[in-house]
Amino acid sequence: MQKLLLIAVLAAATTSAEPLAPAAQAEARALREKALADDTALDLVRSLTTEVGPRSAGSPGDARAVAWTVAKLKSLGFANVRAEPVTVPRWVRGEARAEITAPWPQPLAVTSLGGSLGTPPEGVEAEVVPVTTLADLARQPPERIAGRIVFFTGRMERTRDGAGYGRAVATRGQGAAEAAKLGAVAMLMRSAGTSARRTPHTGAMSVADGAPPIAALALSNPDADLLERQLASGLPVRVRLASTARYDGEAQSANVIGEIPGRDLRDEIVLLGAHLDSWDLGTGAHDDATGVGIVTAAARIAGSMRERPRRTLRVVLFANEEFGLSGAKAYAAANAAAIERHVVGLEADAGAFQLNGLAARVDPDRLPLVRAIQALLEPLGIGYAGTEASGGADLGQLRELGMPVIDIDSDAAPYFDLHHTADDTFDKVDPELLRQHVAAYAVVAWLAATVEGGFGRLPVAVAAPAAIR
Amino acid sequence: MQKLLLIAVLAAATTSAEPLAPAAQAEARALREKALADDTALDLVRSLTTEVGPRSAGSPGDARAVAWTVAKLKSLGFANVRAEPVTVPRWVRGEARAEITAPWPQPLAVTSLGGSLGTPPEGVEAEVVPVTTLADLARQPPERIAGRIVFFTGRMERTRDGAGYGRAVATRGQGAAEAAKLGAVAMLMRSAGTSARRTPHTGAMSVADGAPPIAALALSNPDADLLERQLASGLPVRVRLASTARYDGEAQSANVIGEIPGRDLRDEIVLLGAHLDSWDLGTGAHDDATGVGIVTAAARIAGSMRERPRRTLRVVLFANEEFGLSGAKAYAAANAAAIERHVVGLEADAGAFQLNGLAARVDPDRLPLVRAIQALLEPLGIGYAGTEASGGADLGQLRELGMPVIDIDSDAAPYFDLHHTADDTFDKVDPELLRQHVAAYAVVAWLAATVEGGFGRLPVAVAAPAAIR
Repeated sequence: MQKLLLIAVLAAATTSAEPLAPAAQAEARALREKALADDTALDLVRSLTTEVGPRSAGSPGDARAVAWTVAKLKSLGFANVRAEPVTVPRWVRGEARAEITAPWPQPLAVTSLGGSLGTPPEGVEAEVVPVTTLADLARQPPERIAGRIVFFTGRMERTRDGAGYGRAVATRGQGAAEAAKLGAVAMLMRSAGTSARRTPHTGAMSVADGAPPIAALALSNPDADLLERQLASGLPVRVRLASTARYDGEAQSANVIGEIPGRDLRDEIVLLGAHLDSWDLGTGAHDDATGVGIVTAAARIAGSMRERPRRTLRVVLFANEEFGLSGAKAYAAANAAAIERHVVGLEADAGAFQLNGLAARVDPDRLPLVRAIQALLEPLGIGYAGTEASGGADLGQLRELGMPVIDIDSDAAPYFDLHHTADDTFDKVDPELLRQHVAAYAVVAWLAATVEGGFGRLPVAVAAPAAIR
Repeated sequence: MQKLLLIAVLAAATTSAEPLAPAAQAEARALREKALADDTALDLVRSLTTEVGPRSAGSPGDARAVAWTVAKLKSLGFANVRAEPVTVPRWVRGEARAEITAPWPQPLAVTSLGGSLGTPPEGVEAEVVPVTTLADLARQPPERIAGRIVFFTGRMERTRDGAGYGRAVATRGQGAAEAAKLGAVAMLMRSAGTSARRTPHTGAMSVADGAPPIAALALSNPDADLLERQLASGLPVRVRLASTARYDGEAQSANVIGEIPGRDLRDEIVLLGAHLDSWDLGTGAHDDATGVGIVTAAARIAGSMRERPRRTLRVVLFANEEFGLSGAKAYAAANAAAIERHVVGLEADAGAFQLNGLAARVDPDRLPLVRAIQALLEPLGIGYAGTEASGGADLGQLRELGMPVIDIDSDAAPYFDLHHTADDTFDKVDPELLRQHVAAYAVVAWLAATVEGGFGRLPVAVAAPAAIR
C-alpha cells in the first residue's frame, strides 16, 4: 500500500521537462514490480546448472548447453532463435596434483590454470622460490629462478568493486610465461580469488612464445598460507607436482541468439549479453548461469508489457567467454557493418549479488536520460556510478566499435569468493537478489528500447578499462 | 581499568560461606587474565598443522605427530613425558570418484567414509534410490534396493549445540551395512555435516557382518542437492562410482602423556584430554589441533602460577580417536585400577569457537563448587549448562568407571561446517577465541587441582549421552 502511494506521488511529480515521459516511467515501474514477482530467471539457472552443469568451451557440456539454450529460448517465445557457429579452442584439464615434499610433507589443493600445459608423467619436483608479483619476479637474479618452481604469493584484495581482481589476474595471465622465460620448471600461484576454502580458482592464462612450456597451478588460499608458513621456517621447501592438462584441437560451439522483435523500430537493437560457457570445476551458477537467466528473463518480461518495446531486444548468449572470448570476437566480426543498429548494450556477468550502481558510457548529451533511468532503479539499491562503464568482456569489442554501453553493478566481494571454483553452484544463488537483477535489466532494456532517440555513439576504439572476467 | 575495578568488586563480595576461598578465586582470575594474553596454544596449533598436517591413525603423519608431541611437551617443561604404545587399525582412503551418468551427466564431489571398502577397479554403476533415514530404508521393499545405489538424503541440522550430528552420524555409521544387507551395490549419503561448500565430510562407519562389502561415499551438500534435483525430475537417475579405499592391517601409534606434578597431592590426577590424530582431508585444525593446544597450554599456564596446583595435571593426547577410540580404550584399560586417582576429567574436542557453557557430571553434593567455578568463567561467556556432561569421546570410558567429568561447551554450528572436511585448516582458527578456551580450561584445571576435596565419584557405567566426535 505504501509502495503504491509512493509510486503515485513520484508519477505526479514528474514534469514534461524530464527526459522520460510520465507514461514511460509508470510503465517502467510496473515492469520493475512485475519482474520482482517473476521466477523465470531462477528456473533457467536451476535448469542450466542441473541439466547441463559444467560447460567449458568445446566440452560435451558446452554442446549440451547450446542445445538447451535454443530449446529454452524457443519455448519462452523468442523470435529468430539461432545458434551461430563459433570455433573454440579445446583445452582439457585432466588431473593436477601437488604436494610439499620437504621440509614437512603435506598434500596441496591445486587446480591447473586454464591453458596450462601438463608436466611429464613423472611430474616435476624442485625447490620453491616465492615472489610476490610479476614485478618482483622481474627483479630476481635469473639463477634464483632457473630450475625452480616459482610461487606467486600475492593475495587478491576482497572489495565491493572487485578492483583486486585486475591485479591478481595479471599474475594469472602472464606469470607462467614470465617464469618460464627465466627457466622456472613450473609455476604455482595463490589463487586469483578470495575463497577462504580449499577450492582453488582456475582461470585463463597465456603460454609464452618461445619459452619452454611449463605447468601452472593455482593453490587454494589456505594451501598458499600453508606453503608460506613452511617457507617462513627458512628451510628449503620443495614441491612435487604433476598435471595432465593438454590442448585437444578445436571444437564447434555457438553464440545462441533470440529476439523480442521491436514494435516499429525493429531494425534498432538493444543488446543483452551473457555467456553460456563456464569453467568446469563448478556448474557455472554465478558465472554465468545467472547472467543467462537475467538477460533472458529481462527481455521476456520487458517484451510482455502492454507497451511493447519499439526497438528489438536481442539476447546473445556468447560462446567461450572464459578461454579467449571466441563468441564475442565472432559476433563483433559478423556485426561490425551493422554496429550503428546496436543502440546500446548491457551485459550480465558478475553473478547475482547485491545491486549497487549503474554506470553508462554514452554520448554525454544523453546522460540526463541515463540519470532518469537510474532514478527508477533506486528502489533496487542502484545509485549512479558514473561514466566509466566497460560493457563487460563480451561487449568490449562492440563498445570499441562505437556502441554505447550501460553497466549494472553489484557487490563483487562474494562473487570473487566463488568465481572459477568448484563452489560456483546453484545453492549459492539467492532468488530474491536474482529477481532484483532481472528487474534492473528489464527496466533498462525496456526504456532503452522505447525512448525517443538512443544513447548516441561512442568514439571508435575509445580507451576504456579492460574488462576481465 | 574498568576490568580491574570489576575484579576488585567481585573479590570484595566473596564471603567465606562460598565453596571457593577468596584467595583461590583471586588466583583463578589472575590465571584467566594470564591465559588471555598467552599464545602458547596458537603456536602449538600452527606448528602441528604446518609441520605435521594430516595424521590419520597409522599414517606417516600419525607417527610424526607422536614425535612432535613428545618433543613439544618436553620443551614446554612437562614432566613424565611418555608415548604409551597403542595399536591402531590402518585404513587407506585411496581415491574416490562419482558421477551422474543419467539423465544429465555431471561429476559429483565425494569422499569415502572412513572404513569404507573399495569397489572393483571398473567401479559400480546403478540406478539411485533415495531414502531419507535408516528407518526409511527399513521400510523399503527389498526389491527396490537390491542391485541399486542407496542415497541417504537426510540433512544435518545446523544448531549451536550440535544436536543434529547425533542423528546424521547414525546414518553414517550404519547406512552402508543396512543397505548392503538389502542387496544395495553401494551407498551414498549427504554428508553428516553442514558445510555449504563442495567439501564432503568424512567420518567413521561400520562394515556389516555377513553382508557383502560395499563402498560408502559422502556427497558434499551442494552435490547432494544436485542429485536430489535430478531425482526430482522423476527420470531414473544413474550414478557411476569407484573407490580404492582399503584396510592395510594395523600400525603402532601412541597416547602421548605429559604432567605438571602436583605440589602435595601428587597422586591425584586432573585429566586434560584431546586427541592427536585427525582425519586426512584437512590438517585437523579444529579437530583436534585446537584441543591439543588448549589442554597443553592450559596445563602449562596453570602450572606456572605462583600458587602451584596441589594435584597433578595430566595431559593425555589420545591416539586414534577418529577411527575407533583406540587410545581411549588403551588408556582406560591401563588405568582402570587407578581410576580412583582420577579426580576429574576435561576433554577439548569441539574446536575453538564461541564459548557458551559449562556442564558437570559430578557428585551432586559438589555442584555448589561447580557453580562457583562457572561463575569465574562468566566473563568468557560461559553459563551454567547443567549436569548432562559426557566428558567427550575419549573420556567416556573413564566416566563409566566413575570419574567425574566437566564439559566446556562452545558453539557447535561453525564446528560442523568444517568437521572432517578438507577445510579444517589453520586459517580457520581465531586466535582470540582460542585464548578464551585456554583461559577456561586453565581456570577449571587449576581450581580442580587445588580445591579441598574433589568432585566425588560417579556410579559405575552411568548412562550418559553417547559422545560422538
